[in-house]
Amino acid sequence: MANIKPSLAKGTRDFSPREMEKRNHIFNTLKAVFKKFGYSEIQTPSFENLSTLTGKYGEEGDKLIFKILNSGDYLAKAPADLLDSRNANSLTKHISEKALRYDLTVPFARYVVMHQHELTLPFKRFQIQPVWRADRPQRGRYREFFQCDVDVVGSPSLLNEAEFILIYHEALSALGLRDFTVKINNRKILSGIAEVIGKPALIVDMTVAIDKLDKIGLEGVNKELLERGFTSEDLDILKPIILLEGNNEQKLAALKSVLQSSTQGLAGVAEIEEVFAYLESFGATDLLRERVEVDITLARGLNYYTGCIFEVKTNEVAMGSIGGGGRYDDLTGMFGLKDLTGVGVSFGADRIYDVLEELNLFPSSANASTTVLIINFDKTIEAYSLRLLANLRAQGIAAELYPAAVKLKKQMSYADDKNIPYVLLVGDEEMNSGNLSLKNMKTGEQGTMRLEDLVLFLKK
Amino acid sequence: MANIKPSLAKGTRDFSPREMEKRNHIFNTLKAVFKKFGYSEIQTPSFENLSTLTGKYGEEGDKLIFKILNSGDYLAKAPADLLDSRNANSLTKHISEKALRYDLTVPFARYVVMHQHELTLPFKRFQIQPVWRADRPQRGRYREFFQCDVDVVGSPSLLNEAEFILIYHEALSALGLRDFTVKINNRKILSGIAEVIGKPALIVDMTVAIDKLDKIGLEGVNKELLERGFTSEDLDILKPIILLEGNNEQKLAALKSVLQSSTQGLAGVAEIEEVFAYLESFGATDLLRERVEVDITLARGLNYYTGCIFEVKTNEVAMGSIGGGGRYDDLTGMFGLKDLTGVGVSFGADRIYDVLEELNLFPSSANASTTVLIINFDKTIEAYSLRLLANLRAQGIAAELYPAAVKLKKQMSYADDKNIPYVLLVGDEEMNSGNLSLKNMKTGEQGTMRLEDLVLFLKK
Repeated sequence: MANIKPSLAKGTRDFSPREMEKRNHIFNTLKAVFKKFGYSEIQTPSFENLSTLTGKYGEEGDKLIFKILNSGDYLAKAPADLLDSRNANSLTKHISEKALRYDLTVPFARYVVMHQHELTLPFKRFQIQPVWRADRPQRGRYREFFQCDVDVVGSPSLLNEAEFILIYHEALSALGLRDFTVKINNRKILSGIAEVIGKPALIVDMTVAIDKLDKIGLEGVNKELLERGFTSEDLDILKPIILLEGNNEQKLAALKSVLQSSTQGLAGVAEIEEVFAYLESFGATDLLRERVEVDITLARGLNYYTGCIFEVKTNEVAMGSIGGGGRYDDLTGMFGLKDLTGVGVSFGADRIYDVLEELNLFPSSANASTTVLIINFDKTIEAYSLRLLANLRAQGIAAELYPAAVKLKKQMSYADDKNIPYVLLVGDEEMNSGNLSLKNMKTGEQGTMRLEDLVLFLKK
Repeated sequence: MANIKPSLAKGTRDFSPREMEKRNHIFNTLKAVFKKFGYSEIQTPSFENLSTLTGKYGEEGDKLIFKILNSGDYLAKAPADLLDSRNANSLTKHISEKALRYDLTVPFARYVVMHQHELTLPFKRFQIQPVWRADRPQRGRYREFFQCDVDVVGSPSLLNEAEFILIYHEALSALGLRDFTVKINNRKILSGIAEVIGKPALIVDMTVAIDKLDKIGLEGVNKELLERGFTSEDLDILKPIILLEGNNEQKLAALKSVLQSSTQGLAGVAEIEEVFAYLESFGATDLLRERVEVDITLARGLNYYTGCIFEVKTNEVAMGSIGGGGRYDDLTGMFGLKDLTGVGVSFGADRIYDVLEELNLFPSSANASTTVLIINFDKTIEAYSLRLLANLRAQGIAAELYPAAVKLKKQMSYADDKNIPYVLLVGDEEMNSGNLSLKNMKTGEQGTMRLEDLVLFLKK
């Protein structure tokens, strides 16, 4: 065994007990909300056949997929010419048959196709698992990170879209966020705009440009639009759309007027109106007014989404989007199952973690750790302490006896470091009287009580 | 995009909603017990530097580690001679720097060494994560499976060993198992026996042979011992040890007599006695008598363990061990941190799953799924149903409205397939009267109640 100084693989992280508590706080909160809305958890394997993943994420994406080397003599079946010419790119598929999950969407599509005969549609699932990308690691970007997706397939109803807005609201509120915005757009509106201008083929160029409004302003957007094949007449038509102002009703009214000649565009507006009508029926009028914003510059994953598009940002901290998603009409087409519509959103767990940290919104660790540490004074009272320990645990109280009679200071600092809120000091006197000394580690207060009272006190 | 029929990578599994519920039932039960005993969760990355893992699992183990191909032009830096000679074995480390976690132990050792200055000892951690092995898949053996480890490092106290027996007892009982045995042995006893025979160097041969007693009987064991270098005189000494009978006290007494000339052997016996004394102090006398069994044929991971060794088996189903572990005195030595003692056990989650399945011990899925489905009769009462839905969810009840007014039969079979225990039938009459019709999907019973009563009823 080599005696090496160990290190983490680049772009990966250990999660300490305190970090796990915080991450579990996020995941457990999200899961509870997903379940309340009728979503069930699934998991897929960490690696898939390479052929399942290749070609789904574009050329750049394919490069970022981590490939797993075949076991055994993986060179035996590799074509000699590729080895001799050192053609790594073409060689890969001959020496690697498996690859690590790159996202949760493609494995989910694979799951739906493979299990189509057991699934009852609509199928509502959530999935929280790590994914891996061979990106250059940098601050806040990791090679292993968790995705958290909620999707329903097999239901065209816009009720689902409305419920995703409720899910965002309920989950982020439960995490303590107070000011966030769910932006909504619709692919059909974007298509309609390109259609009205008479340049439907330039829809991607158009959306790529107007998506940058926040960063480069109207002048910058116009410059880019001109470069991408639009004329100054087009810009005149686009300007009021890009600078669309007012509340949601005003925006939708303006869009209807601009898009009157586009059936598609009007359908997009009508979809958003139907989602809003659902929210009204839910009694979520305040939520709709305060948290939901029509934003036609929103274009995430355009090649993919076919209906409503969502993005969520917090307004309390400077941070990119903390979630997003939309409707896609051909999730499983890549695996030969056509015409299955789906809609889903995801939560950016790492960013949400950073937001909660910055706003100091994580609950204190007190509940997550051991509740009480029994100090170990000496071997003769150990038996008494062990009975006490068994009693506390039988009552469901997380408890420990320090495993050796070392110096008090060391035992106290163990409790401190582990965020244990109470220590129980049991010496001869306590053993004989049955009056136990309990110390509050936060306030330093100390008092005595009988076991029965102690149990009641600690259970609270 | 190629239109391929998708499949799972060999040896991997999808987990459906129902399977996830069952798996989570196991993991949540174990986690709750670990926490009650003061253990905290950590996680380590799915892949490690190849050098962190290589050489830790023996030559056979190294072959089973999944290696990750370097990104980019991975052949650029590969030695020409290895490529030209098609030497896959030697080439690997030049084209792969990372590998998937093979177990949780080595990454934990790496964790402890890297975080040694932040950790308060004793450090009590549990870890539940998948591991990957390039084994030939077969029934019950997967290439991706979950390990579930609980360890404490930095405490030589045998209180920890005693608590692991309690942890096994409490966790398996909480899962509904009623008849299981925790076997205990001690590496020092095995060393002592080899010492008494005068063949300390043959300890591994000896334990490998007597470990097979169950399978090949005494005659088979003796035959193998002779082949492995023991004499018939040795067999005479070994026989009463191998066939050790009686209760634990009788076995320990017999061992003390056999091992009287071996300080080491006696120390092993004394350690087991101390563990038992701790259990007595805990008031776990019945547990000790009924569930704990001294078994000196137990030798799992002998090269690794230095003190007590554990193994757990259920007596209700024919199944290999469902858990095991022991004390190791040099976990972190491989990474240059010497003399850190540890002790830990693991739970075989996949086997426990199979046992609970066979004994029908999983709780009904009723609590895990949506509690009530509101039937969608027609668009005109949708608004009323949505208010109802919002009300139920506000009370913490997992509820859904079927997202379209399709045939009743289809909606009922959705509820059925999803194991939803109740459906709410809301038509014009119900809307006008406020008397809601609730149907129990299991019994078929149907009754009407007001919303307030419905909430109280479903919350139970």
